[in-house]
Amino acid sequence: MIAVVAADKQLSGWDGFGLAVQAYGKRARETIDWVAGLAAELDRRFMVRLVKGAYWDTEVKRAQERGLADYPVFTRKAMTDLSYMACAERLLALRPRIYPQFATHNALTVASVLERAGGTDGYEFQRLHGMGDPLYAALIEGHAGAAVRTYAPVGVHKDLLAYLVRRLLENGANSSFVSVAADAEVPVAALLKRPAAIVGGPARARNASLPLPSALFGAERRNSAGVEFGHAAALHALIDEMGVHEGVATAASVIDGESAKGQTRVAVSPVDGRRVVGHVIDATPEVADRAMAAAQAGFGAWSRMPADSRATALERAANSLEASRGRFLVLLADEGGKTLDDGVAEIREAVDFLRYYAAQARAGFGAGMVLPGPTGERNTLRHRGRGVFVCISPWNFPLAIFIGQVAAALAAGNAVVAKPAEQTPLVAAEAVRLLHAAGVPAAALQLVVGAGEIGALLVAHRAVAGVAFTGSTPVAWAINRALAAKDGPIVPLIAETGGINAMIVDATALPEQVVDDAVLSAFRSAGQRCSALRLLAVQQDVADRVFAMLAGAARELKLGDPRDPATHIGPVVDGQAQARLLAHISAMRQTATTHYAGVAPTEGFFVAPHIFEIARAGDLDAEVFGPVLHVVRYKANEIEDLLAAIEGTGYGLTLGIHTRIDAAAERIAARLATGNVYVNRNMIGAVVGVQPFGGSGLSGTGPKAGGPDYVRRFGLEQVVSVNTAAAGGNAALLAAEE
Amino acid sequence: MIAVVAADKQLSGWDGFGLAVQAYGKRARETIDWVAGLAAELDRRFMVRLVKGAYWDTEVKRAQERGLADYPVFTRKAMTDLSYMACAERLLALRPRIYPQFATHNALTVASVLERAGGTDGYEFQRLHGMGDPLYAALIEGHAGAAVRTYAPVGVHKDLLAYLVRRLLENGANSSFVSVAADAEVPVAALLKRPAAIVGGPARARNASLPLPSALFGAERRNSAGVEFGHAAALHALIDEMGVHEGVATAASVIDGESAKGQTRVAVSPVDGRRVVGHVIDATPEVADRAMAAAQAGFGAWSRMPADSRATALERAANSLEASRGRFLVLLADEGGKTLDDGVAEIREAVDFLRYYAAQARAGFGAGMVLPGPTGERNTLRHRGRGVFVCISPWNFPLAIFIGQVAAALAAGNAVVAKPAEQTPLVAAEAVRLLHAAGVPAAALQLVVGAGEIGALLVAHRAVAGVAFTGSTPVAWAINRALAAKDGPIVPLIAETGGINAMIVDATALPEQVVDDAVLSAFRSAGQRCSALRLLAVQQDVADRVFAMLAGAARELKLGDPRDPATHIGPVVDGQAQARLLAHISAMRQTATTHYAGVAPTEGFFVAPHIFEIARAGDLDAEVFGPVLHVVRYKANEIEDLLAAIEGTGYGLTLGIHTRIDAAAERIAARLATGNVYVNRNMIGAVVGVQPFGGSGLSGTGPKAGGPDYVRRFGLEQVVSVNTAAAGGNAALLAAEE
Repeated sequence: MIAVVAADKQLSGWDGFGLAVQAYGKRARETIDWVAGLAAELDRRFMVRLVKGAYWDTEVKRAQERGLADYPVFTRKAMTDLSYMACAERLLALRPRIYPQFATHNALTVASVLERAGGTDGYEFQRLHGMGDPLYAALIEGHAGAAVRTYAPVGVHKDLLAYLVRRLLENGANSSFVSVAADAEVPVAALLKRPAAIVGGPARARNASLPLPSALFGAERRNSAGVEFGHAAALHALIDEMGVHEGVATAASVIDGESAKGQTRVAVSPVDGRRVVGHVIDATPEVADRAMAAAQAGFGAWSRMPADSRATALERAANSLEASRGRFLVLLADEGGKTLDDGVAEIREAVDFLRYYAAQARAGFGAGMVLPGPTGERNTLRHRGRGVFVCISPWNFPLAIFIGQVAAALAAGNAVVAKPAEQTPLVAAEAVRLLHAAGVPAAALQLVVGAGEIGALLVAHRAVAGVAFTGSTPVAWAINRALAAKDGPIVPLIAETGGINAMIVDATALPEQVVDDAVLSAFRSAGQRCSALRLLAVQQDVADRVFAMLAGAARELKLGDPRDPATHIGPVVDGQAQARLLAHISAMRQTATTHYAGVAPTEGFFVAPHIFEIARAGDLDAEVFGPVLHVVRYKANEIEDLLAAIEGTGYGLTLGIHTRIDAAAERIAARLATGNVYVNRNMIGAVVGVQPFGGSGLSGTGPKAGGPDYVRRFGLEQVVSVNTAAAGGNAALLAAEE
Repeated sequence: MIAVVAADKQLSGWDGFGLAVQAYGKRARETIDWVAGLAAELDRRFMVRLVKGAYWDTEVKRAQERGLADYPVFTRKAMTDLSYMACAERLLALRPRIYPQFATHNALTVASVLERAGGTDGYEFQRLHGMGDPLYAALIEGHAGAAVRTYAPVGVHKDLLAYLVRRLLENGANSSFVSVAADAEVPVAALLKRPAAIVGGPARARNASLPLPSALFGAERRNSAGVEFGHAAALHALIDEMGVHEGVATAASVIDGESAKGQTRVAVSPVDGRRVVGHVIDATPEVADRAMAAAQAGFGAWSRMPADSRATALERAANSLEASRGRFLVLLADEGGKTLDDGVAEIREAVDFLRYYAAQARAGFGAGMVLPGPTGERNTLRHRGRGVFVCISPWNFPLAIFIGQVAAALAAGNAVVAKPAEQTPLVAAEAVRLLHAAGVPAAALQLVVGAGEIGALLVAHRAVAGVAFTGSTPVAWAINRALAAKDGPIVPLIAETGGINAMIVDATALPEQVVDDAVLSAFRSAGQRCSALRLLAVQQDVADRVFAMLAGAARELKLGDPRDPATHIGPVVDGQAQARLLAHISAMRQTATTHYAGVAPTEGFFVAPHIFEIARAGDLDAEVFGPVLHVVRYKANEIEDLLAAIEGTGYGLTLGIHTRIDAAAERIAARLATGNVYVNRNMIGAVVGVQPFGGSGLSGTGPKAGGPDYVRRFGLEQVVSVNTAAAGGNAALLAAEE
């Protein structure tokens, strides 16, 4: 076996950020693993990335987004150079079993390789056509047998644009060898300083200027921990954690910590529609009433607990949730059909909600804000709980939205009666167990399991001090009317509802990125996200190409068991959802142009991805909650009509924009009051505290979940004004130094 | 004429903070004016204060609260000493026409007086019994003819407590002569440094460590300007400003800047129920509809205007309002029966609202808040207008609440349809003229004049994007139901409603302060404030004394023409309100103990103050919107019953607490979710930005008017997430210095 191991040297002298392995033939996989093992030996933090285009800076971003334990790349040139030379030594030592190729324009690296190789046999250098001519001319002159291969990127301007921009950015970097070498003011000795000397020892190995992903939010809160699915060991650990949690779960209402009794129904897996995954006891009206009374009784003590103590309980719950992710991944897949990466993302969101709202409670519900005012008086604005909050959550984020609502209401000092969707009580029941175990008193958090009729009873109850609801717009209307019907305090309703979310792509956009983002936004989670892309509007000039690429990309999506890491799309939540989607698909096949029609497994509640082209944006007038993407063309001069049609849906949840023209993106964002606008990226997966989430119009009331105003909306304001001079004088003024 | 002019020296050596003038006999007033003229000559900033107990530190507070142009007292010892000596020179020069008395324990002052007097004839020194013995012993020894009078406060411990605390605070002050003289480490030369030398020249005359009242809120906004009613010149200037605005005002709906036509009705003064003060044209339903359509059309341009420009227009309106206070004082008195000090306070509140909301718009509705997040991405949270806001305001603050609602809605970028109370369209129409003239586009602010039925049409209109309402709880319910009935976006209702506001007085409270604060809170503005005190609960042990003092204080209140500066209480707003109040009074006289029943003028809509004792706090179960104070006794061990009764009203607007025990005040504030709690002071007159105003329960929805969350509630949130690395690399990371 001979592998060609190319250590890519980029123009900047950033040394490949690891090793790119090119292995060919039948045993390629084995070779790659072997090289990976070698690399792991060299540095525990080192990870071979086989993804094309994985630059160090994008890897840093990815690690932050994924909440990885560390950056899988070196983030400083000297560390990369050091690693590169260590790898080079190993590779050279393995000649002739492998044939290393060293692509570099860094003179020090070339010299170091020559030195370590002890000659010119069994390896080669590579250079980019047009770069490093003097360097390699000198090399060949001094070392007759040295092999230097010249390579060049080949393609048309359009294809190479991103590559060229990248090279420009890198050559402009302060640390680029090419740029430093050209600077007459930099002494040659500085250029020839060895990487080990620059780093200065293991204590300085870490790049102190980049926070670890866990520290992204500073002292306020720890970022949730994620999983690198591309890292076999991490993935296997995750699957192992899930293995111990197989079995049948249970859910029943929980009143003051006691499970309510009643008739049991079975919950089946959406993967096959048969396998029993849980036993559920729905609440009777009497149970719902008891839950409200229990919460009312529990409000006082929880409300009087210092905000800091409430926050601490929520943070304990966050830590405990991270520690028990296996259990929740099983439930999310079994009950909700969630794939593993969706499950991990959802657990992370729930963890983030808990920590973010805990931090908000500390900041807003503690000692209060002292307001400016006249001397001799102290005016303090403080916040407190309202009473009993009813939290009604949907099945599509049975953990994250459930916990998000509950955590916000609890953080503000309310007692909570939580009613999860009838489709997903198992996840909710487990979450309530976890919250209680973490220190949320049983009296402060009551669980009511049941369908919409039970939710209606809760909302109509006289003790309701607030309602948080995520679900459909018509149900939000019904809740709003039930609340308004009562003579009593006007009760806040925090509703997050649907959307007919569009992505607008102009002719300047990068088609590859558009397709990646559109496919992810439309089909991930089987399209069962409020934020999911429903309507892709592409400028006429590039529409044919984009639609063709889209169909190609959709074809690559694998439907199947959500617990298989290779699965992209699991089943939809139940047979009812499936039937509704299939009916829509069937209608669209009659009236629209079909760009792609996937094939779904025959058993279970699967719906395959579909792409339909419709004639006018306005033709899509209802939210289709599944993996069905509608596309439409628009002419550049019709953009205002398109925006008016999007506005005309009445919804305003998410909006994607792909363009290389900043002003165009800003103009569209300013024109539409959409809650979350995403430019040149996908439009799902809003991160707590980073992309506070929620829409306008028919899409919700605000405030945005995971945003700075959310927890305060669950509370009451109180201003306490104290005359501090009442004792006989204004001590502050009398004691003031002149 | 011989006046005794005593220059009071306090124990601390703070030299009387001006001069206390004791003048006796028939020409006392003339003498005082003469001395005041003398003082004014000495220093323009100097003002003779005739109010008992006007210490410099409380005067600083009062000036800040009143928004005076400057502090009417010296705020540094050296400036006071300098002024004292300047005055002393003049007084000594006027011997024997006046007989000056110099009360001091400051050796330097004593020596300076002796020096300036050129002998010991025609004046005397005074000292406090037990203080300054060595000083005056030395004085008499050296100056045989010197007169020294010894004085002493006489009273029981209870009466002198505040005085003693005051003395303790002063003697503890760093600058106290007595305290410095006792310090062996302070050299005698420092003690003898002359005030002029300490001040160091006119440029240092101002105390730089105290902001002027106008600068109380720093760079964010200028404090509104007030009037010192105790200062004859200021009061006369105010009355002169009003004089030029006599006449009959007009009010009609204003659509796109054009006055709507229609039937005219007359508005009469509540002072006599006869004098015509205005002509009013109420809107027809067609006019209301046109106003909504016009606002809808005007929304876009106003919303797109930068927040900074919107804020500037509001600030121009604030300045213009301060400049035209005479006009508004006339209207407020003519249409609303507002006394001059109520009128000035209301204009100030309106000015503060305009400036505060302008500042909030700049802070919250401008470029937006960049949120923390992963590198390579920019997440910005920004706020924008919702659409057409309907603002429905009450008659009791026809200017401040009207402008407050409108300014907040406009600041957030909404177009506004404003409907003032049917009782007070004249003030509102003038305010709209002023706002338009200040730069609020006619299309962005429409005025609809009319009664409740017209308001109902506005609220039910399909174009409503939000409603701000201040008024009764039942009307808020009706609005809420009308909004909920619609299929469309769930529309926010920001409602501020009534209250049954209590003040709790325990046995440790200072009765004099309780009575001052209770009378002001219950009777000022004829009790026609949402915040007004309705139920005074006094601990049994001190109740008899407090009730007797209350009746005595109420007896001193003068009812009459609100434009007479001597008037404390003007008429209630109209005959309907008067009849309702008189019916309540008549019922109470049958069922309650009458502690005080005032007598009202026979013509006009006057209602005299009444004080009724009821048996149980719970007996008062409705808001009585006028000058009727209900009092009740409670036993110390019944405090929880009292709090439960207050909570049981369902309202939670304002609460007063009088106690010398901090922990008791905090316990009550924590126990009741009342929106505004006032400790050891009156409970009305919440100041914008200082005491954000609004209640809980039946008293309103929040957020608090004049608070940090108010303007944002009128807007929508939008998060724009931009992939800044889409161009081909993460420039921020690549360019970062290591």
